[in-house]
Amino acid sequence: MVSSLKRLLIGRPLKSDQLGDQKLNKTKALAILSSDALSSVAYGPEQILIVLVTISAAAFWYSIPIAIGVLILLLALILSYRQIIFAYPHGGGAYIVSKENLGLYPGLIAGGSLLVDYILTVAVSVSAGTDAITSAFPSLHAYNVIIAILFVLLITTLNLRGVTESASFLAYPVYLFVLSIFILIGVGVFNILTGHVSPTLHTPLGTPVAGISLFLLLKAFSSGSSALTGVEAISNAIPNFKSPAPSNAAKTLVAMGSLLAVLFSGIVFLAYYYGIRPREEVTVVSDIAEQIFGRGFMYYVIQGTTALILILAANTGYSAFPLLAVNLAKDKFIPRMFTARGDRLGYSNGIGILGLLSILLIIAFKGRTEHLIPLYAIGVFIPFTLSQTGMMVRWFRQRPEGWVTKFIINTTGAVISFIVMMMFFLTKFVQVWPVLIFIPLILLLFHRIRKHYESVADQLRISSCEPSFPIEGNIIIVPVAGITHVVENSLKYAKSLNAYQIIAVHVPFEREDELAFEAKWKNWQPDIRLVSLYSPYRSILHPLTKFIDTVQHKASESNYQVSVIVPQFIPKKGWHNILHNQSSLLLRTHLLYRRNVIITTVPYHLKK
Amino acid sequence: MVSSLKRLLIGRPLKSDQLGDQKLNKTKALAILSSDALSSVAYGPEQILIVLVTISAAAFWYSIPIAIGVLILLLALILSYRQIIFAYPHGGGAYIVSKENLGLYPGLIAGGSLLVDYILTVAVSVSAGTDAITSAFPSLHAYNVIIAILFVLLITTLNLRGVTESASFLAYPVYLFVLSIFILIGVGVFNILTGHVSPTLHTPLGTPVAGISLFLLLKAFSSGSSALTGVEAISNAIPNFKSPAPSNAAKTLVAMGSLLAVLFSGIVFLAYYYGIRPREEVTVVSDIAEQIFGRGFMYYVIQGTTALILILAANTGYSAFPLLAVNLAKDKFIPRMFTARGDRLGYSNGIGILGLLSILLIIAFKGRTEHLIPLYAIGVFIPFTLSQTGMMVRWFRQRPEGWVTKFIINTTGAVISFIVMMMFFLTKFVQVWPVLIFIPLILLLFHRIRKHYESVADQLRISSCEPSFPIEGNIIIVPVAGITHVVENSLKYAKSLNAYQIIAVHVPFEREDELAFEAKWKNWQPDIRLVSLYSPYRSILHPLTKFIDTVQHKASESNYQVSVIVPQFIPKKGWHNILHNQSSLLLRTHLLYRRNVIITTVPYHLKK
Repeated sequence: MVSSLKRLLIGRPLKSDQLGDQKLNKTKALAILSSDALSSVAYGPEQILIVLVTISAAAFWYSIPIAIGVLILLLALILSYRQIIFAYPHGGGAYIVSKENLGLYPGLIAGGSLLVDYILTVAVSVSAGTDAITSAFPSLHAYNVIIAILFVLLITTLNLRGVTESASFLAYPVYLFVLSIFILIGVGVFNILTGHVSPTLHTPLGTPVAGISLFLLLKAFSSGSSALTGVEAISNAIPNFKSPAPSNAAKTLVAMGSLLAVLFSGIVFLAYYYGIRPREEVTVVSDIAEQIFGRGFMYYVIQGTTALILILAANTGYSAFPLLAVNLAKDKFIPRMFTARGDRLGYSNGIGILGLLSILLIIAFKGRTEHLIPLYAIGVFIPFTLSQTGMMVRWFRQRPEGWVTKFIINTTGAVISFIVMMMFFLTKFVQVWPVLIFIPLILLLFHRIRKHYESVADQLRISSCEPSFPIEGNIIIVPVAGITHVVENSLKYAKSLNAYQIIAVHVPFEREDELAFEAKWKNWQPDIRLVSLYSPYRSILHPLTKFIDTVQHKASESNYQVSVIVPQFIPKKGWHNILHNQSSLLLRTHLLYRRNVIITTVPYHLKK
Repeated sequence: MVSSLKRLLIGRPLKSDQLGDQKLNKTKALAILSSDALSSVAYGPEQILIVLVTISAAAFWYSIPIAIGVLILLLALILSYRQIIFAYPHGGGAYIVSKENLGLYPGLIAGGSLLVDYILTVAVSVSAGTDAITSAFPSLHAYNVIIAILFVLLITTLNLRGVTESASFLAYPVYLFVLSIFILIGVGVFNILTGHVSPTLHTPLGTPVAGISLFLLLKAFSSGSSALTGVEAISNAIPNFKSPAPSNAAKTLVAMGSLLAVLFSGIVFLAYYYGIRPREEVTVVSDIAEQIFGRGFMYYVIQGTTALILILAANTGYSAFPLLAVNLAKDKFIPRMFTARGDRLGYSNGIGILGLLSILLIIAFKGRTEHLIPLYAIGVFIPFTLSQTGMMVRWFRQRPEGWVTKFIINTTGAVISFIVMMMFFLTKFVQVWPVLIFIPLILLLFHRIRKHYESVADQLRISSCEPSFPIEGNIIIVPVAGITHVVENSLKYAKSLNAYQIIAVHVPFEREDELAFEAKWKNWQPDIRLVSLYSPYRSILHPLTKFIDTVQHKASESNYQVSVIVPQFIPKKGWHNILHNQSSLLLRTHLLYRRNVIITTVPYHLKK
């Protein structure tokens, strides 16, 4: 039943050689790889206002200079990543770039923060998408968390099915979103130019504001730079482009940067000019759209496309996380299971874990986007900084033609990313301190996992010098609970094995049982020796283990092997198992993990 | 570590022959067996007022005639149970009495409702005990559920240790409770007689009240009869009395009835005269005590002893539930595990399940006593009715000397119990309907479990006529994942078994791996045949199972036995297991439950 439900949800298994090799053209790639970055404009501008509102609405004009700062940062990042694209045409994720140029541990820091970050990508995007929906339908606001969880489950299922095939269908929402925000900005600016918007809604630029401080402005700036999360996506995915892959990827990156710049500045400007105040239940984009269009058709189009692109952005996490996990697992830093492809050729373990962890995050943060964003942003700017620094080192080491310009560009990128990262620590320490605990913990875990895998490989490897003596003979122990077909079956098997000795062991809890059973046994199986282990404490495990130890001690002297044959009857239906004491299961697990003894289970299948 | 924690909490295991046979004298028995019944006065009177308050405070005078009705019911029950004691000197639980006289299904209805009821005993008593504590310390009111859960855990632990030895220590709280309520009643009545209590606090008897109805009065009466829960305890425990057990038990029962009558009428009277209104956060007993003593020493004594006796009453559930479970398990109606004695000779499975289920109930009902009581009371009056009816049938069938009087007494008991039960259904259907679903469900479950056990016993029994052919030879299949010590070990064992044939099976996911592995194998183990099962769907289980089926099909033609030897390495530390794909575990479980094949696990223990 579980299996047929799985088929229904995920589809039938695919053969390994069905792994397609679809290459993306620029238009498609732009749509698919930029949903994460472009969707950030749905929450980035709001983050700036949330900081400024703590002073007063008069401070909102500062959002304009702050936005200019964010645009400069964007320019630096786009130029830096353009260089990474050409330097790493096979995909330059922060993990690889940092590991190659800065060494293993910086690479692991980048990899570890990205792993956590992709979980946050999913949590943030889905929460923000849910916000867009509940802004349009306020009565759903109370069900935010449940709606978000349902979306995560939906995306997880789609990814387990494998969504790459349906990539073309994924392109529409992105272009629809860009189009509808363009219309929003166009109509908004038109209204302003034609004088339909009261200029009293906003304070003019340069109005002095009491209580404003550099600290606060830095805080607003770092908040706003959360709109830049996702710009690294293209540089990770170069192998997916049609050739010439690097130059196509670079062009796509520049196009994405330009779109992002226009959308971001447009929304910040409209929010400023229309004097939008950030509110708990309604997003800033929703407020702007309502001011411009009222709650009409266009309003719902904008909310709908915003929700869609945000949920698509979550999907970016689903392509990136499993790939990074595979790289880390191949280097033996995380469990091997992440390298296995599932029925539909996706890395289903990675997909499943990602879904689970992001649901936990959504629950822990009660689906409140603004609390998730600082952690998300810092998790992005740590690998940003590391990969740009890695590129600096690379240029300096290799010194190809014209390296100085390239070095300067990546240095600028590194310095700005580092500054933004430090701003997060300085201005939002209360929200981002968990990073300082999680990253060392993850590094420690990586280290210990790697050490374990290496030690196991060492121990399993066959070195020719080790002698291996054949087994001289077998001593078989059969624990018996009664005189039944189950036991009969096991004894039959034991007799067929050419064993040196077969010993049946009975563990009675009462002295009377002991004698009665021995008498019956002598009648039934006179040629098999029966040992009774009276157990006044009503434990089967303890006396049996002690007995096995004794036998094993003697056997090892002459290179004899001890094995235990466990008779077990298998009920016809699964639920029947709870009606029977699971002594054989317990016995098997205990002996297998605690003692060096071979365990054989002889099943006796009940027919009804 | 788990094991040493268990030792610390529960104590070291006891030998079976340490099972003592302590008999109770009347004083001790009264204390131990009546905590459930006597403690009911802590919530019974309040239940009457909770119903009456829905009309108005003026209706409170009706609590006096209602209390008289409850006392008459009490008298009938005590007389009836006195007869059961003499008729069933070995313990006359409702299950046994109903089963013997009315037939299996009425017995099972009684048994099933009692099983559920003992869980409710624990939940109700602990919740009410917690109410007594939080009435005294209102700041704890918000933590009601957590406090109640902690108490359940404490009682469960004590019972797993085995509390019977400490029975004398359990007697004090009961007598202290009786004493302190006597003092309360004494001082309260003294105050009234000396004119210290304003007669305006209560409305005189007979005041006409608008809106009162027979339905409401019946509802109040049935609510009040929840004070009678627990009167059956003595009749279940006759074998624990010093001889002559029946007559001692009967005397104890009468003493308990008298005490209960005095306490109950006293509290109802004081509540009426002092004009106590039932409130959410404070119990009626607490209110009375505060009116009479203020928040002084005596107030805290009363609250403390009330809490103590209520928690002791929960303990009654812990002695009764496991015993009933043993009886039902011996008759094969519930899983066999309930008959096993734990390390400390208690029926630890029953104790543990009872603790768990009552915690779940407390959580589900948020620890609100008044919502639990109706279910509890109806679960008591169903077996009351059944066992009294059983006694009627018994007298009518056996007709011993003077049977008519006895018949009349039990008939009265049966009729009154039946009426109270019907009143619950009529007046509190919204709260008690789950009983109508649970009891049929439990009966169905009982029936199916019994059928399963009987069918298993049939199938396992060795009948002499069945022929059993010896195994002609063994075919051993060894799934191999690589060329390692683990595999080497398993092959060594396989070679020692005198098998007809050994086949190593490799499941490659890629065609290239297949050839490379075959070449390496030929070098390493030239004398063992290797079969490669290329698996394009990346499943190990499916191709292997198919292969085993083929081999088994051929083998069965000539009475050959197929066994699978699974190589498995055992990591040194438990947590390491998550770092390795549990293919061998999966394989073992799948084959054992789905196929008729013998599974041998050869462990290879890692040393670091």
